[in-house]
Amino acid sequence: MIIVMKKGSTAEDLKRVEVRVTELGYRPHPIVGVERTIVGAVGHEDKTPLHDLEAMDCVEAVIPILRPYKLVSREFKPEASVLDVAGVAVGGRELVVMAGPCSVESRDQILKSADAVAAAGAQFLRGGAFKPRTSPYAFQGLRREGLELLAEARKRTGLRVVTEVVSVEDVPLLVEYADVLQIGARNCQNYALLAAVGETRKPVLFKRGMATTIKEYLQAAEYILDRGNYTVLLCERGIRTFETATRNTLDLNAVPVLKRETHLPVIVDPSHGTGYADLVPAMARAAVAAGADGLMIEMHPNPSEALSDGPQSLGPADFEGLMRSVRPVAEAVGRALTGPKQK
Amino acid sequence: MIIVMKKGSTAEDLKRVEVRVTELGYRPHPIVGVERTIVGAVGHEDKTPLHDLEAMDCVEAVIPILRPYKLVSREFKPEASVLDVAGVAVGGRELVVMAGPCSVESRDQILKSADAVAAAGAQFLRGGAFKPRTSPYAFQGLRREGLELLAEARKRTGLRVVTEVVSVEDVPLLVEYADVLQIGARNCQNYALLAAVGETRKPVLFKRGMATTIKEYLQAAEYILDRGNYTVLLCERGIRTFETATRNTLDLNAVPVLKRETHLPVIVDPSHGTGYADLVPAMARAAVAAGADGLMIEMHPNPSEALSDGPQSLGPADFEGLMRSVRPVAEAVGRALTGPKQK
Amino acid sequence: MIIVMKKGSTAEDLKRVEVRVTELGYRPHPIVGVERTIVGAVGHEDKTPLHDLEAMDCVEAVIPILRPYKLVSREFKPEASVLDVAGVAVGGRELVVMAGPCSVESRDQILKSADAVAAAGAQFLRGGAFKPRTSPYAFQGLRREGLELLAEARKRTGLRVVTEVVSVEDVPLLVEYADVLQIGARNCQNYALLAAVGETRKPVLFKRGMATTIKEYLQAAEYILDRGNYTVLLCERGIRTFETATRNTLDLNAVPVLKRETHLPVIVDPSHGTGYADLVPAMARAAVAAGADGLMIEMHPNPSEALSDGPQSLGPADFEGLMRSVRPVAEAVGRALTGPKQK
Amino acid sequence: MIIVMKKGSTAEDLKRVEVRVTELGYRPHPIVGVERTIVGAVGHEDKTPLHDLEAMDCVEAVIPILRPYKLVSREFKPEASVLDVAGVAVGGRELVVMAGPCSVESRDQILKSADAVAAAGAQFLRGGAFKPRTSPYAFQGLRREGLELLAEARKRTGLRVVTEVVSVEDVPLLVEYADVLQIGARNCQNYALLAAVGETRKPVLFKRGMATTIKEYLQAAEYILDRGNYTVLLCERGIRTFETATRNTLDLNAVPVLKRETHLPVIVDPSHGTGYADLVPAMARAAVAAGADGLMIEMHPNPSEALSDGPQSLGPADFEGLMRSVRPVAEAVGRALTGPKQK
Repeated sequence: MIIVMKKGSTAEDLKRVEVRVTELGYRPHPIVGVERTIVGAVGHEDKTPLHDLEAMDCVEAVIPILRPYKLVSREFKPEASVLDVAGVAVGGRELVVMAGPCSVESRDQILKSADAVAAAGAQFLRGGAFKPRTSPYAFQGLRREGLELLAEARKRTGLRVVTEVVSVEDVPLLVEYADVLQIGARNCQNYALLAAVGETRKPVLFKRGMATTIKEYLQAAEYILDRGNYTVLLCERGIRTFETATRNTLDLNAVPVLKRETHLPVIVDPSHGTGYADLVPAMARAAVAAGADGLMIEMHPNPSEALSDGPQSLGPADFEGLMRSVRPVAEAVGRALTGPKQK
Repeated sequence: MIIVMKKGSTAEDLKRVEVRVTELGYRPHPIVGVERTIVGAVGHEDKTPLHDLEAMDCVEAVIPILRPYKLVSREFKPEASVLDVAGVAVGGRELVVMAGPCSVESRDQILKSADAVAAAGAQFLRGGAFKPRTSPYAFQGLRREGLELLAEARKRTGLRVVTEVVSVEDVPLLVEYADVLQIGARNCQNYALLAAVGETRKPVLFKRGMATTIKEYLQAAEYILDRGNYTVLLCERGIRTFETATRNTLDLNAVPVLKRETHLPVIVDPSHGTGYADLVPAMARAAVAAGADGLMIEMHPNPSEALSDGPQSLGPADFEGLMRSVRPVAEAVGRALTGPKQK
Repeated sequence: MIIVMKKGSTAEDLKRVEVRVTELGYRPHPIVGVERTIVGAVGHEDKTPLHDLEAMDCVEAVIPILRPYKLVSREFKPEASVLDVAGVAVGGRELVVMAGPCSVESRDQILKSADAVAAAGAQFLRGGAFKPRTSPYAFQGLRREGLELLAEARKRTGLRVVTEVVSVEDVPLLVEYADVLQIGARNCQNYALLAAVGETRKPVLFKRGMATTIKEYLQAAEYILDRGNYTVLLCERGIRTFETATRNTLDLNAVPVLKRETHLPVIVDPSHGTGYADLVPAMARAAVAAGADGLMIEMHPNPSEALSDGPQSLGPADFEGLMRSVRPVAEAVGRALTGPKQK
Repeated sequence: MIIVMKKGSTAEDLKRVEVRVTELGYRPHPIVGVERTIVGAVGHEDKTPLHDLEAMDCVEAVIPILRPYKLVSREFKPEASVLDVAGVAVGGRELVVMAGPCSVESRDQILKSADAVAAAGAQFLRGGAFKPRTSPYAFQGLRREGLELLAEARKRTGLRVVTEVVSVEDVPLLVEYADVLQIGARNCQNYALLAAVGETRKPVLFKRGMATTIKEYLQAAEYILDRGNYTVLLCERGIRTFETATRNTLDLNAVPVLKRETHLPVIVDPSHGTGYADLVPAMARAAVAAGADGLMIEMHPNPSEALSDGPQSLGPADFEGLMRSVRPVAEAVGRALTGPKQK
């Protein structure tokens, strides 16, 4: 339910509504707007209805949310959210780019990556320190050492760090080092992990699962917001289909569907989405034309030597070329992409 | 195999090579270029090799084609084909747009459609007179009457007519009326029909099947070229996946994959690809950004009254808006889209 | 609509109803039962309702069919159909088996195949003379010569011949030679071909398409029955999914779903369904346990030398073993499978 | 690698080999057989090869495992494993059946369920106390209270209890109450959870993910065995495809593929696999005919009142009918299914 507060209602009024909502067995989620304040109230389906809240003098209306997802929906918040992600606005006119290697492999590799990422104009460095690998015998990441290298790269370049969290017990460690916690596709319906990052106040980059419908994906995102963490970036990264010419099928249709259904920003990852470096620039341009708020791109100083995901990684020069080719497309759809750093 | 003729070889030399290729049990496909002439030679896998053709004095080299598809491949013809489709160049800098209703329903409907399509700057009018419907009890099209209405619309507006052929026996009738023969997704592997349109010299708009891999799709296209009809436009129109938020999953990844594998132009149909009119403009922009050579868009003078595919059809104003929004994206990727007709 | 004739109504009454149904723009499909006669009346959705037929004195009731498919549905005919297929009852207690090679390759190969098929107790010989191959350069079948070899094999063994028809123009030739016309998966929605076999009175083995939903499949079958050919055997042969351990995913769920939705018999083809010979016996047993009315099995006298589909073909001894292992499963579910020929 | 010990090697020899394997950076997994003892040695791909172990006098051979999965493979252990699951042998001639409601809802519901499950001859009671629900606002299970009710049902009936674990932090609690820990489809690639249950010595029922290939699934199972827990039951429960007539597509092909690739037992869940109660008995029979070692069936004392998964749950009488109809199929394939309890 959405409780619309009357114009001129006070902070105290808001508090009273929150208390009442809690008493009725719901969780209150206030959004204080410039014009008007609203309170989302969510809970189990079988609770008492909230309509008697309309009797409170500070409440203008109580409106049901019909979608199976609530806090993420445009019903709850009709305008697009522009989120503050470690000082970078995501979801506004300016596009964001997150780039870097699949895994942090060495100091040299991650610093070279960071330099190239920053030089090309991106705002975020991605790199995995904890890797969810298909085989238990494959390289699982440098773990804490990888996080420290990412922190060093951040200090050197000013880039924000996006890195994946794969288990609840690692959350506190990751919160300490990362600017953005990434939830990978395999954990898209790992609700315990979603709840755990929902309890933090770190921005979350939340990837769609390989076989998760958009409806299920938004309900999963709801697990994060329901715990009070509203800084969630969605990320389309390819779904599983019968086609074998690409590793996954990047589902760009998800971009306009998500933009219609939710106020959250949408990032697109054409590297995992296609699995082949030569397809990444075209799909990056397409993603922006479809309305994406940002891109996540795998870049490695030397793709042929990457310990993981080499075939889908761009080298620094190709990454810079991608950025250059995306810029006019961004402008063509009324967006902007930061230019390369002045040398 | 590709037989590369020596520079300065004559038409007579070419004839000799063609005769020899035929004698050896292959079908010759000559391409006379500005710089150089080549002859594709295709046949059953188990035939005698052609390497002894290298002994002919007019032949420079005999090169195998490794891909399972031959005449459509970039191995056979490395540069993109710019095809003459009823006087319109397809595959060059200028994008093409094919628009119109799913079915021709009435004189009034198709003339209104044609006027709106032409006014917005498109070059082709699409409209089905023979419809392959899922149910035998659904509207199957106006047949010959529909073709005559399309011809009238062409005369009135100068638009070229694209219309579907669903059976071999209708091919002669369709050849008489259409500028472009469309093969629909359900007939993507109807090899008898592909061979039949391959025997004509009408341009073919050949749609990908709902569950056809790109490799199978290109091999199917080969059935058309193998009969000597080289004017084939490929068309991505959505594949079948588990996702239900869209009617199909428009697979834009197919665009850069096809552009790498084949020299044939690639058209994208976001109307069937998504199934919902509100998603069409974003996906049309994305298709162009991904490198498509053209768009096929369902437009109806009054979508809510359409006999078929209403939910995915744009009205005239929305179609005009789509064209306007695609134009800057086309320019951002070095292409152009004709402006609206001067009134 | 289903028009239920009164008990005791005469052939003349039936004729009058058929005439009236036709006048109203519908196609009548009479089924004369032991207890009662009914007439299916199908036509385009927008025709006049038939309810005024209830005014005829010989008509007891006019009942709508709610499913999108009509003549194939259990609404139209609640009890399972036991079809006479060239003298063999299909759909009754006794299971049927169709076996043989993918393609007719030579006289020796097909006669050896037929001997092994007959010896193991099967009733039908399958073998392709016209092959719909993915590549135009692959072996396309022996055509008429193949049909003659099949006829010779039939004469020698008494087996009925099932062979594929891939184009409308071949239908008359195939009708002359075959006992059962097979429509392959790629032509599942080739409605022109379905209508053409619907005009014949030959039994049809109609395979499900690779990405055809069960609902679409039944609507496609309706195209055959709507032309008056009611002897249609459905055939599940594997669908396209993301899994790569099997060539297709044999969808045995389709068996109980089809048995609930339609009165037509259901055959299962585990050879195409899995793509690997070692998986075929287990899936054949599972198909029978799920309720299939018969099996279609690829068998080749020498699988390693087959021109097509060798990896999924059983040799004669393995085929005989499959038959032996299926028999007790058939009995466990109240069915029977003919024993091997007495030698 | 598999290290084959010489005949007559001692426990001390084995210890020495284990120490040496560990020193070289691998994890040793000894299997002491009647005839021969072998040691699996697994570790990261980039470690020193183990071939110098052949120099040890107690070692007969060092053999590489080529499959991407090691401990679960038939290369490692060629004969099928018969596992002791809380006193019940799984994987032998006798089939096992696990049945019960989706969720534990109340004392009355779970005790009635247990009585019906036991009466029909099943050995395991399934029931969720912790539920991974698509929406955070749906019923999430009775948690500890549910576990206590399951324990009461066990005491009353002697059934073993299978219940799902959804987060690492719940593992100790679940170990205390459950006989078998279930990992659900959504957590199939939640490697942190797999490692956590791998550290326990509780039997694990490990469900395949909705879009997990068989190869990925076996690699995921490897995460459990790699931690020393070898009592793992695999479970096919339906995959995601385009088909909508069923909730999922139960992939019975996985049964013979898994039986070929791995020595672990394979359970089939036709309730989640199809999503509709009327399809469950046919698919249960098919699963057994395909070679499954057991069944997992949703049963509810009153399906129409179930809080979750009602449409796919059988009532007690239908469950008893299913058991009765599966028994002859089990016998037809050389297996057995315990009869109903004598009253």
